[in-house]
Amino acid sequence: MILELPRKTEHLGAVRIHEVQRVYELDSGASKFPTKAKEAVATISNDEIERINQKMAIVVPIKDERLNLLEGVLSGIPHDCQVIIVSNSARSPVDRFQTEKQSIKEFNHFVDDKILLVHQQDPGISKAFRDAGFDSVLESGTVRGGKAEGMLVATLLGKMLGKEYLGFIDADNYIPGAVHEYVEIFAAGFTLAESPYSMVRVSWTHKPKIEDDRLFFPKWGRVSEVTNQCLNRLIESHTGFGTEIIKTGNAGEHALSMALADLLFYASGFAVETYEIVNILEQFGGLLPPTHPEVMSSGVDIFQIETRNPHLHEDKGEGHIDEMLLSSLGAIYNSPICSEKAKNNIASILAGRGLAKEGQEPPSPTKIEPAATLDLPRFVETIRRESQTLSEFGG
Amino acid sequence: MILELPRKTEHLGAVRIHEVQRVYELDSGASKFPTKAKEAVATISNDEIERINQKMAIVVPIKDERLNLLEGVLSGIPHDCQVIIVSNSARSPVDRFQTEKQSIKEFNHFVDDKILLVHQQDPGISKAFRDAGFDSVLESGTVRGGKAEGMLVATLLGKMLGKEYLGFIDADNYIPGAVHEYVEIFAAGFTLAESPYSMVRVSWTHKPKIEDDRLFFPKWGRVSEVTNQCLNRLIESHTGFGTEIIKTGNAGEHALSMALADLLFYASGFAVETYEIVNILEQFGGLLPPTHPEVMSSGVDIFQIETRNPHLHEDKGEGHIDEMLLSSLGAIYNSPICSEKAKNNIASILAGRGLAKEGQEPPSPTKIEPAATLDLPRFVETIRRESQTLSEFGG
Repeated sequence: MILELPRKTEHLGAVRIHEVQRVYELDSGASKFPTKAKEAVATISNDEIERINQKMAIVVPIKDERLNLLEGVLSGIPHDCQVIIVSNSARSPVDRFQTEKQSIKEFNHFVDDKILLVHQQDPGISKAFRDAGFDSVLESGTVRGGKAEGMLVATLLGKMLGKEYLGFIDADNYIPGAVHEYVEIFAAGFTLAESPYSMVRVSWTHKPKIEDDRLFFPKWGRVSEVTNQCLNRLIESHTGFGTEIIKTGNAGEHALSMALADLLFYASGFAVETYEIVNILEQFGGLLPPTHPEVMSSGVDIFQIETRNPHLHEDKGEGHIDEMLLSSLGAIYNSPICSEKAKNNIASILAGRGLAKEGQEPPSPTKIEPAATLDLPRFVETIRRESQTLSEFGG
Repeated sequence: MILELPRKTEHLGAVRIHEVQRVYELDSGASKFPTKAKEAVATISNDEIERINQKMAIVVPIKDERLNLLEGVLSGIPHDCQVIIVSNSARSPVDRFQTEKQSIKEFNHFVDDKILLVHQQDPGISKAFRDAGFDSVLESGTVRGGKAEGMLVATLLGKMLGKEYLGFIDADNYIPGAVHEYVEIFAAGFTLAESPYSMVRVSWTHKPKIEDDRLFFPKWGRVSEVTNQCLNRLIESHTGFGTEIIKTGNAGEHALSMALADLLFYASGFAVETYEIVNILEQFGGLLPPTHPEVMSSGVDIFQIETRNPHLHEDKGEGHIDEMLLSSLGAIYNSPICSEKAKNNIASILAGRGLAKEGQEPPSPTKIEPAATLDLPRFVETIRRESQTLSEFGG
């Protein structure tokens, strides 16, 4: 892979937010220095990518997505990666989880990928959290159905498997080649990172939509544009310099080093990707007392890398747009690092869209405790004993 | 890449037509034997793919396609491959060829790909063909504007560069990851080939269309289905056994070993991909006196490999459908190896679609002489001296 070097980096405390980097070429081939412009670009060799892939788990959250799409996504994930599928699909009237399991088994017969499958609401997992007193993912004693809760389960399973990197890819992608690019982007980012605490967020070059029976390629998603603006206003209120650095405030496709994932609070609901950035700034941005001194000396790298492939996924309709926006902006607004100026900006956006009345504050997200705070060996022991859905394939 | 082994092969004389093979997984990773099912599948390692890529030229014919799409296609072609762009774009009122040249130069500044660019109707190329008495590509002394003529020019340039494989990829593809998969499919096929005379044809898993503002994924293209049926009727009329082996009768994305490309007649017009199969059967199918005894002992391998990525390209509308069908079926109908039964099948299809009256025969394609019949050193010398458009980038 040949990609741009970041042309600008914003520093906040120990956090380094790198400007969006374009992918120039998907496959840089056999040569280690394939281009004369080697001072201007980063070339990540296939060997370097393979080395990261072998230490990376790719998490695919699934919730009633079509099996054809899931199989396409699996076919695009490099064989070297561990796959963790966290299903939150319906179990009645049709048991879609069983259908998914069967379908994964058939797919995997020939490719022999290493796949771990679990249902998010497996009673054994809920029990393991209850036994550990880890209440922040539970509702009435059962793991909540949200994306962040699934991400926490996947983080713990990835940790159990000794993986050093964790990437998230949605199950509704139409383009296996785009999935492959996401994973290579993750590996490229981790290769470039100077800190063991690092994050790679995917920026889509285009997110095609169908308008008047034609494909149209707008540059930004509808929610992202607003989220990015609010995050940038937040950052510039602290640095004193206007910035457009954040382009990936709602990036569903993103990856974390396990060292960083271990320390983060995940926000329940639609705010999870936005809140990762906010929480990194809260913990390591130098604006509040640092939570982990060892991170402050290494720093945290946040990369944003723009794909070559368009992001073509199932259109879930307009229903969630308002909810996503309210969650994402609420996660910024309610942070202790959110300045008055950044709050006013959010309030006026929400009022302008009729999402909040005068003086009404957006909701604060429910937060899930960091994975590091859980006794992992005990958690794993309970799951291995009590789980009704945990299945391991291949490898 | 992990792909199916062909489950069936049709033999006609020295020609082996292999059944469609599915790609199971795009990236088989670092291990040489990544799957336990290694007796049932073919795993082509990254090293094997790189070895072929370094000997392969990827030809991109372009005719007024949007520059954004061309850049996406270039970004998907592995760096190891030589790129040959044969443009047949308009030179007035806007000189699109100059715009393409500028755009390629900008793209290539950072990636340093090896790219050869030429305009198909370069007076120097026409002169080189005229001097050689190679009249079958000329009309009034100038190279005709068709795809097959561009393919011949590219074949000769690839030969000039000493390349051993030649792959063709259209410039109007929306998905760089799909382009990357095509090239890996070509390399996988050539790795599997037992003969130096081999061809790899891409079968699309789906060719999405927009219907009622939704994406629909039909299995077959509209013309392909009919062409495939007619080729299969032709084959079974010789073997005596019904077959559905051909699934890629109109595969624009395909590749040839240079040894095979050198010997083939290309058909002018829309019939070029269909006629490649017909011409291979004419020359090496044992139905007519063999043209090249050395090929008869090695055999000819034709692979058909089904992509994981959907084929999403610019919709050029319905205008050419009838013309494509008439050309493709005409190329089969007028072959000396076309049996009465296969002719009757074609005649009744054309009559049923109102494309031919009772007793009217479909047109026979204009044929271009094989590249091997041209004096290459002299041709190259003339082009190097007289060409007004030949440009070399990178490497």
